[in-house]
Amino acid sequence: MTSPGKPGDPAAAVLRVGVLGAGVVGSQVIRLLLEQADDLAARVGARVELAAVAVRRPHRHAEVPAGLLTDDAAAVVADPSIDVIVEVMGGIDPTRELLLTALRRGASVVTANKALLAEDGPTLYAAADAAGADLYFEAAVAGAIPLIRPLRESLAGDRISQVLGIVNGTTNFILSAMTATGDSYELALKEAGRLGYAEADPTADVDGFDAAAKAAILASVAFHTRVGAADVHREGIGAVSAADVAAATEIGCVIKLLAICERNGGAAPGGAADGGAAAGDDVVADETESVSARVHPVMLPNTHPLARVDGAFNAVYVQAESAGQLMFYGPGAGGAPTASAVLGDLVAVARNRVAGGRGPRESAYADLPLRPFGEVPTRYYVSLDVLDRAGVLSAVASTFADGGVSIATVRQQGRGDDASLVLVTHAAPEAALAATVDKVAALDVVRSVASVMRVMGEVQ
Amino acid sequence: MTSPGKPGDPAAAVLRVGVLGAGVVGSQVIRLLLEQADDLAARVGARVELAAVAVRRPHRHAEVPAGLLTDDAAAVVADPSIDVIVEVMGGIDPTRELLLTALRRGASVVTANKALLAEDGPTLYAAADAAGADLYFEAAVAGAIPLIRPLRESLAGDRISQVLGIVNGTTNFILSAMTATGDSYELALKEAGRLGYAEADPTADVDGFDAAAKAAILASVAFHTRVGAADVHREGIGAVSAADVAAATEIGCVIKLLAICERNGGAAPGGAADGGAAAGDDVVADETESVSARVHPVMLPNTHPLARVDGAFNAVYVQAESAGQLMFYGPGAGGAPTASAVLGDLVAVARNRVAGGRGPRESAYADLPLRPFGEVPTRYYVSLDVLDRAGVLSAVASTFADGGVSIATVRQQGRGDDASLVLVTHAAPEAALAATVDKVAALDVVRSVASVMRVMGEVQ
Repeated sequence: MTSPGKPGDPAAAVLRVGVLGAGVVGSQVIRLLLEQADDLAARVGARVELAAVAVRRPHRHAEVPAGLLTDDAAAVVADPSIDVIVEVMGGIDPTRELLLTALRRGASVVTANKALLAEDGPTLYAAADAAGADLYFEAAVAGAIPLIRPLRESLAGDRISQVLGIVNGTTNFILSAMTATGDSYELALKEAGRLGYAEADPTADVDGFDAAAKAAILASVAFHTRVGAADVHREGIGAVSAADVAAATEIGCVIKLLAICERNGGAAPGGAADGGAAAGDDVVADETESVSARVHPVMLPNTHPLARVDGAFNAVYVQAESAGQLMFYGPGAGGAPTASAVLGDLVAVARNRVAGGRGPRESAYADLPLRPFGEVPTRYYVSLDVLDRAGVLSAVASTFADGGVSIATVRQQGRGDDASLVLVTHAAPEAALAATVDKVAALDVVRSVASVMRVMGEVQ
Repeated sequence: MTSPGKPGDPAAAVLRVGVLGAGVVGSQVIRLLLEQADDLAARVGARVELAAVAVRRPHRHAEVPAGLLTDDAAAVVADPSIDVIVEVMGGIDPTRELLLTALRRGASVVTANKALLAEDGPTLYAAADAAGADLYFEAAVAGAIPLIRPLRESLAGDRISQVLGIVNGTTNFILSAMTATGDSYELALKEAGRLGYAEADPTADVDGFDAAAKAAILASVAFHTRVGAADVHREGIGAVSAADVAAATEIGCVIKLLAICERNGGAAPGGAADGGAAAGDDVVADETESVSARVHPVMLPNTHPLARVDGAFNAVYVQAESAGQLMFYGPGAGGAPTASAVLGDLVAVARNRVAGGRGPRESAYADLPLRPFGEVPTRYYVSLDVLDRAGVLSAVASTFADGGVSIATVRQQGRGDDASLVLVTHAAPEAALAATVDKVAALDVVRSVASVMRVMGEVQ
C-alpha cells in the first residue's frame, strides 16, 4: 500500500489491485472497480486503484484503460507495488504458480478458481499463512450467493451437520426442463446449449466435475477438514432418464443434482434444539465421526426447500445443530453476479490491509476422517417391472433383507401380464444398497429395473 | 485478554466473556460456550472463557456454573478483565448505559437487541469507534439467518437496491394459517397463542414494531445510511381480513407482512446485468436518490421466492445491482438459532481481538435522504362492490386518472344486482394512491370496498 496515511482518511491511502484475466467475470470486475471507485474508497477506508490487468491478448480489450494492460501475468504478481491480486483467469497451471508467487511476497489473493482450490487449496492456504496474507474465494462457489463467509464466519460458533447444494446451473436447468416438459436428457441438453446455459463441451457440468470441486470447497469449510476434489464421489446427470423424472413426479419428488456434504456419526453433545438429521432421513447409529462429500442425482421431495430452485439458479441448504435449517439462494454464475462476490472479497481484504490485520485463516483443525462412498448411508428408490404372480414380493423382499437393507415403503400395481413394484429403502451403506439392487435386478421374477435413484428427505 | 501468549497457540491466550441475561437465548449461549469450548478455542485461536453471567435473580439459574452468577450487571460491564460483553437481556434502559460503559472501556459487544439498535444505534456505534471496539449484532435480525454479515461484507462491493424481509415469525405464522384455513385474523391469532407462536401481549409482533426495528437495521446496513425505528412507516396485520386473504388467493398471491427497504431514484451507472427493480414493479422515474423503510402487509405473487416462506420461518430477499436476486432463509427466532448467531459474532469478535484488529465499522457514509412514506412509490390492489350498471367503470377509471394513478389491470364481474370490480394499479406515490382510493370509495356507484392492499411483484 503506498502512502498509508492516517487511518480513517480515505484519500491518504491507496490500495493497488492487479487483475489476472478479463473474460466474462474479469471484465465485470474491472468495470465495477472503475465505476464504483468512490463507494469502494468509502467502504474500505482507502482508495482501491486498478493497477494492472494481465490478459493473453491485450489488443482485444479496448474496455480496459490504456497503460494497464499487459500479457505478462508473472510481472503483475511479482510487482511489489501491487497489494491484492484478483484471479479470474481460471485453470490449474500456470495459475497456481502465479498465485503462489503473489502470496509468498505477502500480496493478498481473491480468486474465483474452484478447480484450483479443490485440486490444491492446502498449498495456497499454507503460502497465505506463511506470509500473513489473505486468500478469499467467495466467488468460487455459487457465484454471488454469500456462502463461504456465512459458513466460516456466521456459523463459526455452530456445528454444521449437512450441506446440500444445487451448485451447477447447467445441470439444474436441464433437470428442471426435463421435469417441466418430460423431455429426454439429450433433448434438454440440446435446448440448454441453444439458450446458452450449456457450453459446447458440457462435460465439466453434466458429468459433475464442476459441482464436485464446489462440494470439496464447501465440505472443507463446513467441517474444518481438508477435502479435495479427488475425495468427492461424483456421478453426473447423463444417466437420468425421462422415466426417472416421471417416477419422481409420481412420488411427489423432483430430481436434482446435489453436492452433498455430510458429517456422520459422533453423537452431538446433548440438548441441541433443532439438530440432528433432516426429517425423514434415517440416522445410522455410528460411533466414529467422519465426513463425506459426493455429487449425484437424487430424488428430493417437493416439500424440500431446494426442490423449488429451478432453472439456472443455485441454492445451498445448510443444517446446523443450533441454527437449524438455513438456505441461501441466488444466481450461481454469470459475469456480474460473480464479480459482485469478487468485489465483496476485495473490500474485505482491503479493509484487513488498512487495519493491518487479516481475515480468518484456513481452518482444518477438526481433521475428520473421510468416509469412503461405499460406507456412506444412502437411501434408494427402486422401481421394478415384475411378473404379476404370487411370490414376487416375497422374493424381492427377502433379497433386500439378505442384503441388510430395510424397506421403508413398497407399492405394487398390477398391469395385465406384469406389474410394477416401487420401493423406497431405509438408509443403509451405499455399497450394500448397490449390491442388493443388482441382486434384485437379477431375480427371475424381475423383468427389468425401470428406475433406480437415491432419495433424500421424507418421501411419500 | 490475559496472558496473550504467542499467536497461533490457542492454549496461551484466554478471552473472557461476560453475558448479560440468561433467558431463552442467554441460556443457550451459555450452554454452547461451555459445551463447545474446545471447538471455539480452535476456531478463535484463543480459549473463550465464560467469566460472568449477570441476571436479575441469580438463585433461579442452576444451569450456570456456581461462582459466575451475579445480579450486578454494572460490575460485569466495568470489569477490566472481561474482553467481550454478550448482551441478551433486551430492553432499552438500563441496557444502553451498560453497553456504553463496556464499549467506552474498549470491551467489544455482541448484542441481539434490535430495539436498542433501532432506537439509538448511532450512539453505540460512536462509542465503539471511539474506543476501537467491535459492535456486532447478527442475532438482532432474523435469528440464525446470516444477514448482517452478507449485507455489510459479502455485498460490500455491490449496490443494493431493495431488501424485502419476512422478519417476524408470529405474523408470518398467523398469515400462513389464515391462508391455509380461511380463518379470521382473530381466530388465527388465538391459535398462534395456543401453540406458543404469539405472546400473551402480541402487540410488538402483530402491530409491526418488531419488524420495524429490523427494517431500520437492515436499511441502515444495506444503504450505508442511518435509519432509525422512527423513520420506518409501520402498519400491522390486525386489519387483514379473511376477505383480503381470499382476494389474494384469487389473483395468485399470498399476503405477507414485509419489511421493505428500498433505494429510489438515482440512476445506477450503466451496464448492470441483473440490476434495477424486480420484474413487475414499475420504476418511478426520479432524479434524487433516496431510501425508504416501511413495514406493512402486501399481496405477493405465488411465484415470488418469499411467497413460499410459511409458518414461523423468516426469509430476506435482496436485490443488488450486480449480484441480482438473493434470498436468505431460516429460523428467525428461538433460543438455539439466535444463540448460533451470537456465537458466530463472538468468534468473529474474538478473532479480531486475537489478531489485534477489529471488524467493519458502522458505515453511514452514503447518508442518503429518507423519503417520506407519502412519496414512496407503491401499487394497490383494490376490490370494489359496485352497482351493476352502465358508467360504473368509467366513473371509477376517471377518478383514478384524476388522481394521477394509472391502472394496470381491471376485471369486472356481474353478480345479480351488483358487481365486483377488481383493479391493480401501476406505481404511484403512496399519498396519491391512498387519497384516490378514498375518493373512489366515496363514489355513488361504489357500494363498498371489499379489499385494499398494497401489491409487489408481477400480479396476474
